[in-house]
Amino acid sequence: MTDLQFQETDPFAPIHYVYDVEEIICSRRTRYQHLLVFRSRYFGRVLVLDGVVQLTERDEHFYHEMLTQVVLHAHPDPADVLIIGGGDGGSLREVLKHQSVKRVQMVELDRGVIEASREFLPTLSTGFADPRAHVLETKGEEFLAGTSDRFDLVIMDSTDPVGPAANLFTDECLAAAGSVLKDDGMFVAQTESLHFHADFVREVQRKLARFFKIADLCTVPLSTYGGNWWTISIGSKVHDPREPRRQCTVATKYYAEDVHRQAFLAPSLRRKLIEG
Amino acid sequence: MTDLQFQETDPFAPIHYVYDVEEIICSRRTRYQHLLVFRSRYFGRVLVLDGVVQLTERDEHFYHEMLTQVVLHAHPDPADVLIIGGGDGGSLREVLKHQSVKRVQMVELDRGVIEASREFLPTLSTGFADPRAHVLETKGEEFLAGTSDRFDLVIMDSTDPVGPAANLFTDECLAAAGSVLKDDGMFVAQTESLHFHADFVREVQRKLARFFKIADLCTVPLSTYGGNWWTISIGSKVHDPREPRRQCTVATKYYAEDVHRQAFLAPSLRRKLIEG
Repeated sequence: MTDLQFQETDPFAPIHYVYDVEEIICSRRTRYQHLLVFRSRYFGRVLVLDGVVQLTERDEHFYHEMLTQVVLHAHPDPADVLIIGGGDGGSLREVLKHQSVKRVQMVELDRGVIEASREFLPTLSTGFADPRAHVLETKGEEFLAGTSDRFDLVIMDSTDPVGPAANLFTDECLAAAGSVLKDDGMFVAQTESLHFHADFVREVQRKLARFFKIADLCTVPLSTYGGNWWTISIGSKVHDPREPRRQCTVATKYYAEDVHRQAFLAPSLRRKLIEG
Repeated sequence: MTDLQFQETDPFAPIHYVYDVEEIICSRRTRYQHLLVFRSRYFGRVLVLDGVVQLTERDEHFYHEMLTQVVLHAHPDPADVLIIGGGDGGSLREVLKHQSVKRVQMVELDRGVIEASREFLPTLSTGFADPRAHVLETKGEEFLAGTSDRFDLVIMDSTDPVGPAANLFTDECLAAAGSVLKDDGMFVAQTESLHFHADFVREVQRKLARFFKIADLCTVPLSTYGGNWWTISIGSKVHDPREPRRQCTVATKYYAEDVHRQAFLAPSLRRKLIEG
């Protein structure tokens, strides 16, 4: 135990998490937010944006693998992938593990997050050097409204849906995400905790059911996001996301075919959630 | 947000949880520990022992249902049940939902916890008035070493396995739990977080494999136990605990047959855990 502590100030969570801090690695303002990287003895390096923990080196793979690998394996041949947000590079790293992927368009508003990740989070930011990766510095909703590109997968790796990221979950934006997908494309988004934000998860599931043939969700255990029991919401035009369509040949720590199958919310719980 | 806060002092967790407190309901010393009940706007009443949150009214059903209902449904006809610990009454309430259960022996060292639960946690402590419930005030390991009773299920609902509860996970105690079980009996224990205490979970699984034909574990998402991804370790003499043997006819909020089947750790993850 050290004397220096970081107390999360997540307005979206009814419990506040406190971390012991070994060392402040970086504390600066980007153009859009305050960015902090500290080192914890247990969690390794921890990235914090505006007082809310975004990831820790120790457990980020749970989140990034499940956000990306479930749809990457449920899709028969993902080649063109769009990532909205995800400036830390974790989702990009996962997507680029697949040889089938020819091009990843990342749309991240805050270049300061990418710069900090390249500087301080080397295990996350490897993908930025890959020639298949293309970064655009703009708002996700603006890119979706304006692009004529078409994708196999749209991955929404946003901060909590309060403030700027709230715009990503409007009807307009979800409809736009559907329209930039190819005919058998899949959409996936991080949608908070089933413990603390069930109302939000329900709302997203209902919206996805309007814009996609299939709406579903899987959960992932995370130790450092408030409420844990994190949800990953999926909208799919054709393919059932519960079914892996390709063998897992990429290196993962948590994701596996049996994990994929078990991660989807049990039908009895999904029914209770949707009925509210 | 209130001005009054409670910061958990769990020496066993690398994150400290902070709760907003609306009102202190009870703060007293029992014979063995400090006992606090406070009210949180979000979680309802919260029971704290020696600075560590034991349960909240909002999410206790995840823990108590999964600790008890998985083995209650995997066993073909549970009649005699032993609960070690569990002074709050949550596990007792769940066990008594089953008509097949004729007698529950609870062994709880600290009568002060039972008294506080009957006074302040009415939704948990209903079972103490049931004529099938019998409470003995002694240490779990002493009861196990001395009793000639035999049980269908042994449920270990202990505090964190540091201090007094550490004795419950010794070879001697687990062997004794096996020997007070009938020939097709099942043992279940709460065994902490797979995020924060994987070494402990592994150790218990290895021990259970020595004393029982089948050792397995399921997980349950909890928002208020440090690390979440809580484990429930099972040792079984005959019956595969992954398989529900009886229809679920009791009222539950989280447990259901599909939840039972999905709750067991995926084989790929279990292999990684055991291999360490």
